[in-house]
Amino acid sequence: MTTELPGNGGFGDPAFLPNTQQGIRRRNLSLVLQAITAHGPLSRAAVASRIGLTRAAVSTLVDELIRADLLIELGPERPGTVGRPGSALTVGERGPVGIGAEIGVDHLAVCAVDLHGKVRARASLESDNRGRPPEPVLKELARLVREVTTASRSAGLRPAGLAVAVPGLVARDSHTVVRAPNLGWSELDLGPYLLDGLPLSVDNEANLGALAELWIGGDPAPQDFVHVSAEIGIGAAVVVGGRLLRGTHGFAGELGHMPVRPEGPACPCGGRGCLEQYAGEEAVLRAAGLPYGEGGIGLLAARAENGDAQVRRALRAAGSALGIALSGAVNLLDPQTVVLGGALSRLAPWLLPSLERELARRTADPARPKGGTVTVSRLGSEGPLLGAAHSVVRAVLDDPASVAGAQR
Amino acid sequence: MTTELPGNGGFGDPAFLPNTQQGIRRRNLSLVLQAITAHGPLSRAAVASRIGLTRAAVSTLVDELIRADLLIELGPERPGTVGRPGSALTVGERGPVGIGAEIGVDHLAVCAVDLHGKVRARASLESDNRGRPPEPVLKELARLVREVTTASRSAGLRPAGLAVAVPGLVARDSHTVVRAPNLGWSELDLGPYLLDGLPLSVDNEANLGALAELWIGGDPAPQDFVHVSAEIGIGAAVVVGGRLLRGTHGFAGELGHMPVRPEGPACPCGGRGCLEQYAGEEAVLRAAGLPYGEGGIGLLAARAENGDAQVRRALRAAGSALGIALSGAVNLLDPQTVVLGGALSRLAPWLLPSLERELARRTADPARPKGGTVTVSRLGSEGPLLGAAHSVVRAVLDDPASVAGAQR
Repeated sequence: MTTELPGNGGFGDPAFLPNTQQGIRRRNLSLVLQAITAHGPLSRAAVASRIGLTRAAVSTLVDELIRADLLIELGPERPGTVGRPGSALTVGERGPVGIGAEIGVDHLAVCAVDLHGKVRARASLESDNRGRPPEPVLKELARLVREVTTASRSAGLRPAGLAVAVPGLVARDSHTVVRAPNLGWSELDLGPYLLDGLPLSVDNEANLGALAELWIGGDPAPQDFVHVSAEIGIGAAVVVGGRLLRGTHGFAGELGHMPVRPEGPACPCGGRGCLEQYAGEEAVLRAAGLPYGEGGIGLLAARAENGDAQVRRALRAAGSALGIALSGAVNLLDPQTVVLGGALSRLAPWLLPSLERELARRTADPARPKGGTVTVSRLGSEGPLLGAAHSVVRAVLDDPASVAGAQR
Repeated sequence: MTTELPGNGGFGDPAFLPNTQQGIRRRNLSLVLQAITAHGPLSRAAVASRIGLTRAAVSTLVDELIRADLLIELGPERPGTVGRPGSALTVGERGPVGIGAEIGVDHLAVCAVDLHGKVRARASLESDNRGRPPEPVLKELARLVREVTTASRSAGLRPAGLAVAVPGLVARDSHTVVRAPNLGWSELDLGPYLLDGLPLSVDNEANLGALAELWIGGDPAPQDFVHVSAEIGIGAAVVVGGRLLRGTHGFAGELGHMPVRPEGPACPCGGRGCLEQYAGEEAVLRAAGLPYGEGGIGLLAARAENGDAQVRRALRAAGSALGIALSGAVNLLDPQTVVLGGALSRLAPWLLPSLERELARRTADPARPKGGTVTVSRLGSEGPLLGAAHSVVRAVLDDPASVAGAQR
């Protein structure tokens, strides 16, 4: 096994397999496995009719997937029917899991998700990571990862890769956090801390939250949307035609630095009046008259719930600022929807009215359908962690031959 | 011949041909034709080795393209060399042309572009179209189109389609101008005026300007960029991975309504402080103390050239506003470059300094490469018209079987 998926700058990028015989075989393995995870249990004949290959071709592929522990046979089905009974195939309870990890400013979390999409193991730790040096944080995270991989292996599962969500910019096709201002980290390669036999991918938490939305967030999931999430900073991710827009340097989605009031307060980014100066956690806590420290978003939600007028006013103002910045994004991208995810989703009841008002007035040209429907992610603050684990699962489903045992 | 290219909402969308034998033949015809337009004259053997098909397969495809008047043989080449001499193939001086048309607020223009990318005929008319009812404008345009198609046919060329650039929003996959505020048109189907035997496509001028940039604007052409153009309104188009981002309703690229100062002057769109209120032609003329009427951008350029201080100040302010709005776009999309095109390119010398200053300070985080390099289109105000004509040419190159004579 290599320690990288080929050419992969985040497991979320589908593998582009070449048009060679090997490439075609690998794509067909993927078609079979995806048909069974999505619609199984299925007989070989049912798989063949779904994906348009011959029964014989499907049998060969199925045998390979069974040998790789990716599929199991449930035994003959419908024994009373005419003809040779087909054996139903399904994804076993054993087999690969994707390991997802999240480095938050106030917590660390790790989980294992199987090919069914079920969370099979999980570990987390509350810890204030703001300004902590990377080494102890990443050692704690590595310990949680080992806990979850050990638990997975004890249950007969095989970890297929580790994807890590970080609240910061990550350089494309690398393990390097370019800048995570709320942690105080910059130019930090996570590889030395986390490469431990598993393929590793590192991505921005907003990107992974958006991919989670795309993969497991809705039914049907939107294919064109702007996903906004926040912990302390404000991150966003843009999905166009079912694909994450990463940008030339991998830095797309920096909604937090959209100018809201161009002569507003100076922002550490060098600009003035950026969205984060109005709707970032620190700004909102200040406007709400609350101390900046641990548990900020939870505190804001609890106070707003209890009717605290100053907190509600602060959240209304933050909603307006979000609406102004998002109206720029909606005018530029014309998405199906804007999704509020991550920790922001907890504050949605108090942010939404003013956010939607700004968005409607700034995008609701009479001759133009209102571009700005806003939805709240049902994944909530779990989005980035689940997106990380699912990005590994998707990579297995997209190229089953990439996981150990199915390789030739 | 049908009056629509199949499933085409703008000729700029590559045709997606099915994986049937017919589809494969059509794709292979396209590979042969594109190899010869890009690298010709070439012999059959040279084409075969370039595109990886057998010499026999290429010969069959070439014969079909010759019968369709898409290719001609230049006669035996290198008669002195060993073996049967190969005959060099090229795209003839006769054959299909794409007809592009542009409806501007102060002009109409039509041109014919051949498969070499050469402009073969052209007609234009200065006319103030602001607030004119659509019928006389479109009748004049239809007359210019007939002039250019007649001239093309006299030269032995075959018009393959008509693409029209309009300064307004066009509904996806339609001929309907949803809203062109500077013309005063809304919900207007151009089909009845312009469908005259030629396949018709209608698209926003900023989209076609951006496609021109992608196809013929640079060497190498950028694949990820924001293209900003302006006549009276301000339009933009976003190209990601070499594809135009159209948006859910076809309305992506409305940079003109990005909020620059959220409490600024009211905009007809319903918002306040939109970019057009600072950098649209009317706003700039007002700030420059010039009357709003014909030839606004030319007048601004001439006065700025002559050192008029008030005009230069007005353009500096417009450049700042553009820089603020574009910094939002750059933070969100992380493009390779921002291209100033259309009529805006004429004002670039006076807009650029303040535009680049705002963009740099709002996107130039120390740990982040400056995302905001700005270039000026070398196509200038010709971009949308050439983009329209080239969109037809590209459709022919992408699917030669779609043009009359090559159909089976």
